[in-house]
Amino acid sequence: MSQMPSLSQLQQPDAFLRRHLGPDETEQQAMLQALGLASRDELIVQTVPPAIRLNRPLDLPEALDEQQALAKLRGYAEQNQLWTSLIGMGYYGTHTPTVILRNLLENPGWYTAYTPYQPEIAQGRLEALLNFQQLTIDLTGLDLASASLLDEATAAAEAMALAKRVAKSRSNLFFVDEDCHPQTLSVVQTRAEAFGFDLVVGPVDKLAEHQVFGALLQYPDTHGEIRDLRPLIEHLHGQQALACVGTDLLALLLLTPPGELGADVVFGSAQRFGVPMGYGGPHAAFFATRDEFKRAMPGRIIGVSKDARGNVALRMALQTREQHIRREKANSNICTAQVLLANIASCYAVYHGPEGLKRIAQRVHRLTAVLAEGLARRGIQRDNAHFFDTLTLDVGGSQTAIIESARAARVNLRILGRGKLGVSLDETCTAETVERLFCIFLGADHGLSVAELDAGVIVPGIPADLVRTSDYLRHPVFNAHHSETEMLRYLKQLENKDLALNQAMIPLGSCTMKLNATSEMIPITWPEFANLHPFVPLEQAQGYRLMIEELESWLCAITGFDAICMQPNSGAQGEYAGLLAIRRYHESRGEGHRNICLIPASAHGTNPASAQMASMRVVIVDCDEAGNVDLDDLKRKAAEAGGQLSCLMATYPSTHGVYEEGIREICEVIHSQGGQVYMDGANLNAQVGLARPADIGADVSHMNLHKTFCIPHGGGGPGMGPIGVRAHLAPFVANHPVIELKGPNPENGAVSAAPWGSASILPISWMYIAMMGPELADATEVAILGANYLAQALGGAFPVLYSGRNGRVAHECILDLRPLKAETGITEEDVAKRLMDYGFHAPTMSFPVPGTLMVEPTESENKHELDRFIEAMLSIRAEIAKVQAGDWPPEDNPLKRAPHTLADVVGIWERPYSIEEAVVPTSHTRAHKYWPTVNRVDNVFGDRNLFCACVPVDDYRE
Amino acid sequence: MSQMPSLSQLQQPDAFLRRHLGPDETEQQAMLQALGLASRDELIVQTVPPAIRLNRPLDLPEALDEQQALAKLRGYAEQNQLWTSLIGMGYYGTHTPTVILRNLLENPGWYTAYTPYQPEIAQGRLEALLNFQQLTIDLTGLDLASASLLDEATAAAEAMALAKRVAKSRSNLFFVDEDCHPQTLSVVQTRAEAFGFDLVVGPVDKLAEHQVFGALLQYPDTHGEIRDLRPLIEHLHGQQALACVGTDLLALLLLTPPGELGADVVFGSAQRFGVPMGYGGPHAAFFATRDEFKRAMPGRIIGVSKDARGNVALRMALQTREQHIRREKANSNICTAQVLLANIASCYAVYHGPEGLKRIAQRVHRLTAVLAEGLARRGIQRDNAHFFDTLTLDVGGSQTAIIESARAARVNLRILGRGKLGVSLDETCTAETVERLFCIFLGADHGLSVAELDAGVIVPGIPADLVRTSDYLRHPVFNAHHSETEMLRYLKQLENKDLALNQAMIPLGSCTMKLNATSEMIPITWPEFANLHPFVPLEQAQGYRLMIEELESWLCAITGFDAICMQPNSGAQGEYAGLLAIRRYHESRGEGHRNICLIPASAHGTNPASAQMASMRVVIVDCDEAGNVDLDDLKRKAAEAGGQLSCLMATYPSTHGVYEEGIREICEVIHSQGGQVYMDGANLNAQVGLARPADIGADVSHMNLHKTFCIPHGGGGPGMGPIGVRAHLAPFVANHPVIELKGPNPENGAVSAAPWGSASILPISWMYIAMMGPELADATEVAILGANYLAQALGGAFPVLYSGRNGRVAHECILDLRPLKAETGITEEDVAKRLMDYGFHAPTMSFPVPGTLMVEPTESENKHELDRFIEAMLSIRAEIAKVQAGDWPPEDNPLKRAPHTLADVVGIWERPYSIEEAVVPTSHTRAHKYWPTVNRVDNVFGDRNLFCACVPVDDYRE
Repeated sequence: MSQMPSLSQLQQPDAFLRRHLGPDETEQQAMLQALGLASRDELIVQTVPPAIRLNRPLDLPEALDEQQALAKLRGYAEQNQLWTSLIGMGYYGTHTPTVILRNLLENPGWYTAYTPYQPEIAQGRLEALLNFQQLTIDLTGLDLASASLLDEATAAAEAMALAKRVAKSRSNLFFVDEDCHPQTLSVVQTRAEAFGFDLVVGPVDKLAEHQVFGALLQYPDTHGEIRDLRPLIEHLHGQQALACVGTDLLALLLLTPPGELGADVVFGSAQRFGVPMGYGGPHAAFFATRDEFKRAMPGRIIGVSKDARGNVALRMALQTREQHIRREKANSNICTAQVLLANIASCYAVYHGPEGLKRIAQRVHRLTAVLAEGLARRGIQRDNAHFFDTLTLDVGGSQTAIIESARAARVNLRILGRGKLGVSLDETCTAETVERLFCIFLGADHGLSVAELDAGVIVPGIPADLVRTSDYLRHPVFNAHHSETEMLRYLKQLENKDLALNQAMIPLGSCTMKLNATSEMIPITWPEFANLHPFVPLEQAQGYRLMIEELESWLCAITGFDAICMQPNSGAQGEYAGLLAIRRYHESRGEGHRNICLIPASAHGTNPASAQMASMRVVIVDCDEAGNVDLDDLKRKAAEAGGQLSCLMATYPSTHGVYEEGIREICEVIHSQGGQVYMDGANLNAQVGLARPADIGADVSHMNLHKTFCIPHGGGGPGMGPIGVRAHLAPFVANHPVIELKGPNPENGAVSAAPWGSASILPISWMYIAMMGPELADATEVAILGANYLAQALGGAFPVLYSGRNGRVAHECILDLRPLKAETGITEEDVAKRLMDYGFHAPTMSFPVPGTLMVEPTESENKHELDRFIEAMLSIRAEIAKVQAGDWPPEDNPLKRAPHTLADVVGIWERPYSIEEAVVPTSHTRAHKYWPTVNRVDNVFGDRNLFCACVPVDDYRE
Repeated sequence: MSQMPSLSQLQQPDAFLRRHLGPDETEQQAMLQALGLASRDELIVQTVPPAIRLNRPLDLPEALDEQQALAKLRGYAEQNQLWTSLIGMGYYGTHTPTVILRNLLENPGWYTAYTPYQPEIAQGRLEALLNFQQLTIDLTGLDLASASLLDEATAAAEAMALAKRVAKSRSNLFFVDEDCHPQTLSVVQTRAEAFGFDLVVGPVDKLAEHQVFGALLQYPDTHGEIRDLRPLIEHLHGQQALACVGTDLLALLLLTPPGELGADVVFGSAQRFGVPMGYGGPHAAFFATRDEFKRAMPGRIIGVSKDARGNVALRMALQTREQHIRREKANSNICTAQVLLANIASCYAVYHGPEGLKRIAQRVHRLTAVLAEGLARRGIQRDNAHFFDTLTLDVGGSQTAIIESARAARVNLRILGRGKLGVSLDETCTAETVERLFCIFLGADHGLSVAELDAGVIVPGIPADLVRTSDYLRHPVFNAHHSETEMLRYLKQLENKDLALNQAMIPLGSCTMKLNATSEMIPITWPEFANLHPFVPLEQAQGYRLMIEELESWLCAITGFDAICMQPNSGAQGEYAGLLAIRRYHESRGEGHRNICLIPASAHGTNPASAQMASMRVVIVDCDEAGNVDLDDLKRKAAEAGGQLSCLMATYPSTHGVYEEGIREICEVIHSQGGQVYMDGANLNAQVGLARPADIGADVSHMNLHKTFCIPHGGGGPGMGPIGVRAHLAPFVANHPVIELKGPNPENGAVSAAPWGSASILPISWMYIAMMGPELADATEVAILGANYLAQALGGAFPVLYSGRNGRVAHECILDLRPLKAETGITEEDVAKRLMDYGFHAPTMSFPVPGTLMVEPTESENKHELDRFIEAMLSIRAEIAKVQAGDWPPEDNPLKRAPHTLADVVGIWERPYSIEEAVVPTSHTRAHKYWPTVNRVDNVFGDRNLFCACVPVDDYRE
């Protein structure tokens, strides 16, 4: 009988947990032993302050295994209805080329990569992003583009902020075309109110009545009309104001680009370039402006520089722009980009090339023109004289009947007031779609034939003087990869240049680069999740509703909050949304004057930037020598603020990697002054299952679903930063102008374009929590175990800067390199670059303390990988010792020369160390060498010689 | 109006064609110009003999674009019904771990690789295959395993053939346990008949009555019974006969392995180790035997050897075994393996490890035991006293009612005669499955509870004396990759070692390494295609039926044949199936004595092997100096054969890469003697749309769907080799004992285990043809253009051995290296290995002519890639010139030392050429270096010191 264990013994409730965790039981025991501990419990008792411990299991359903979870989510997905959505408003059907779908979007080589802060091991995605900038520049007709913002609506808000900063006009008024998309309008209104800008929304012909610092125009506008913007822009320029133009990438293939019309800022969504609608996101927004405004540009710019050998090398440019260095004066808190989505869009352009793209645009336009002609022949009035892909039709009293017909045909139209209906066509539409629309609008006996109409005279929708005459996408990269074989190889070449989680640990403190499990990723490309327009009637999105509500309830159980707002689509957006809720809360109580925001010196840079965007006054609170908030200073400053105190923003565990013992007291101090506590959720991975922000005293906190809850970093985005709030703040979170949300006050404006932010990646977090259940706490404990194991092993070579009670760290630790730097000149950057030669991505560099490395292993790295990292770091320490000892010159040693490339090895080798020491310093590198593709990148040269477009091919030649 | 082309102008009927073809119009023009031609038409007129030209478009439906084709196939898929299939018979539900699904099965880095004939650039999949062999060895308890056969039934037939070859018994009789799976029985019967072996099928207790050379036993048998085989095996050994045992990998985790019971050959299917059932395939069969029989082992064996630096290196072992060198005496024509599927199975074992696998087996067994107990308590009789996962139940008169209940519950049981029903449980079954079965068998008021039964006393199904006591999978590789992060990285490490089509052209003559488009691949992992048991009632597989029938009709249109037999799951299987049809045809006309098979000297090695397996006498026909069949010799030998002539096997265009002008006459000569023409379809890629085998004179031909019709090579399989036949042969192709096929005579035996062979990969070819339509001819023409472009560019450096009319080659060309070898000692192998340093896979080496390279670019390689290959070959020619000139010593030059590895570069470099010359000889390699991971592999050492299991980890250490 001993041969046959019972079913209950054979059940595997932890089936997924064991896959998610790196170290197994045996390895965990070995790690505990190294720490002199008998059990994980003992470690946690030593580490987490008892005052904050959650001493019961999380109230979550029992874990499902991978198949069960997929089956359950599949059941939800099937409750989404895939109608043909012709709603437009910035979201359009598109075909993701399958070669891109599978080899980029579904490929961990792309989606598990980190933001390219370490450019030497990120040239692949940097090239794809540079292509995105070139695409933006070419299509908008402007000089300079960034590598993606979060969505079109926030890009509009960023445009307004840029205008305010750079316009010479002294006005505080910003004008918004009432024919912008409504969600854009709402986000801009929210932002303007928070900034304290005056806003006027009206028809563009009223623009001349105002003195403004800028105006937001839409081209084509939300109703499809195409206006010649030149007179408006001239008027704006006449008063030293900026013209910001929202536009559509596909339309720009046929329309005179706004840059040529004189626009100063041009932005929009790149969604329809191959990125699924995904019920609202994630998508990349593009953003372009004039060269003269480059230092005010929000978000990331990829620039061309050179490496230590003088070869072309890409990297993120202008990282020292004002919002970074003068963060208390920031007018943008943008941090996360939408890299994965920007890269899909840029690869879509690479794959189709200029002719292919133009053909797509022409086809969409022609179909629309045929539709317009047919409807006109049957007497249906159109509001917009001109159009690219969108018609606004005046159907008067037939509106209800037509909507009913559309419903019967499973077609979503845009329903407008006063007998109006909108139709937007897209790449996925065919002649059959137009036939279907004739039936919907005219009945089955419409007597029209698409073929006949197409053969006849059709009036183009684009005004003759706005037909595009300028060229685009002439760079070879857009003209060389049109066969699938070539595209596949191009994608592979780019992927091969980059180091992602599928090759090695990425021990980035604060970034939580944990496993992004395949089963978590699979649902996001199911058509039922991928292909839903965000503004479909709610009854078509029941699957999304069930999934989101369940996820919200789980996040509440995990954090202790009472409500979740899913709208913010990055961590920084979450901060901003949370501060707005606090602001509105105070206002609701007649305390709108409370505007002081206390922030500890150790905070993330986005914290003061977000506070600034909510028109709060930032007061910095000191930290003591142990890295903790200086309680006395906090009390003093809170008391000084008194009735002016709005809130505190604090990260927990602290950015110094420790569980501050005083956190409850800190929260009490703030509350006692009538302030609110905003908890930055960056380090939530160290709390889950062990402590809950709301229990500790937080009133609101964002959750980086892309850190703690397994949404992959995507090479620098998407992120997702929903906020949790206690009940008193729940009415004050974001609502939405198109899809009204239950809970928040209806008058609250939006913070993102889509009601639930980047809804299509929420299944990732849903799957993670569904498969982990209450055992989420195990992940947290193993993450803490890993960090302490590393701290112990490395502390002798590199002092661990801060630790908490019993000398333990939380889920990350800071290694101090300043003493070594003082003695040898070897910097934290040298160590970071040298790690590349060992096949590792560097830890977080100089945050939160300059001259340090912050290491976070996460629970997904097993002991074998941690030991490999320890081996590398100790080996590097020994190399530094050789510099210390004078064996190697201070400037010619493997650290200063790092990273090493193939070019080093095949050239003449005249260095005081060997090629072997340079490139294969460990047995692992001998067996599985990863090669950085450029030598150390010269950031200063790049910023001095700013060039942010595709490099002429000749420049790559020797 | 010029701004707006019409819809018809914007249609893209060639949307996919333009993605499939490498060179675009401009590149094609440039290539034609290099050949001095004005148009592709002109080239084809010069190349293809007018006598065989098909001067009309293929009769195929208009091409669909990718989305349309996917939508249409989706519609078919939805007509397959996914019931719970508990039929067993060698096919079982399984969970493909999603990390393996996405990163191996759906990853072009794995599926576009070629057979690892060039081991230096294939160490990744060689390691995975070695793991497969270790898995087989450990679980079967034998010494030596191969790296996969086509399916369990053909593995049984190979076991019989091996037994015949090595048994000392002089008997011609082979005994088969009547309780083998019926499809195994049928394939073995077919094979025995063709070989001329006597076969007796009966209950195993009758074995003792016969004098045999071997016996086939099944363990557990098809009805689930588990017998102690030791007495039977002893009896067999007593008469110097071999014991061949078919078995089940999952059962062997709990059962004493057949090797320990004395079996000589053990085989079975590895399907249930994570490979979807796929309506019959593809799956990998495992095969193990004693070390003493290694030279008789069918199929591929991966062995351990060392490289030029003495490091461990894997490669295919014993490639010179008898069936290769004495091909007229072959008793196996096995060539293709099931590499992709074997690798899924081996990675499934790596991922679960010994404990995880054992737990799965225990769970399946426990569920079965609970089911057995419950049914027994309710009085249902069981036939098999012992069991692992399968029960054969005697339900008497209730059979019909139970079948009806099962149908209502969407459950497929195995329906046996005389009131019997079979149930087989598997990894995907749960307690709920057992509850459902209680309801089906006993009605809703069965009063049983799985939990209660599980808590009580349950009799194990495995006989106490057959409980496994020996260990398995102790090698570290099976005990180190159980977290998903580790598994992901292991898969990536292996992938990174290999060169596949996603990195470079693989210009293998005769192998047609063309694009395997993503849209072609996507449907095969749709559950509706992936998860169907091959023996479900036909009405549940309507989607498959529609897809297969359409594909058959298209293949008929392309080849001119009247009927298709989809069963053969490799090209060689197709040859064998075709020859059997010819044999049966002759027999049906009273001409069973016709047994001479004429084969040109240039034929593929499989041709004579297949003929031998059909008991034909092979007579070789000479080729003339131009490489063509010597017509006079053919006529003479055909006349000599006269009434004995069975058939001719010929490849067209010839393996020499030319369209023989005389092909029609050749066919007429054969027909005039009453013979049949078998056309080897290896080169069908050069005929599609330009000529049709049946029109030329072929009576039967196989089609390598994995060459011409885009099924990827998978690193060495799956293949798929259906045959087309003219109407008179249609009744004589394979049928199937479980699912009777319409068309062929019912008495015809099977050649593969599943009715439609590897059905689940047929969607790939369906998609290809659906998206190409009549424009398939364009692909053929561009393939011919590419080959001629290469021939022209390289002919000056390396003489092109054969050409046809007007000096043109067909779709491939043979470069003659013998003169250079004679002069310099540089061999074709040196050039092949040197190409790796340039980032290329070598062309086909020494086939069909020793000392040559046969190059086939296919239509998917663009001019840029062809030029890169030309650059590499000319650069290599210049290197040979330096050896010629004495600049480099004959044995110490980049050719003899090729390929170069990182180990070369980081060590001491004392060679007469530079590191740069060695590893980055071109600008492309400087930018995108691919590194072979081992130096040149020593084949002789490996074969002399045969070791075919996982290497102790220490051996990898220096």
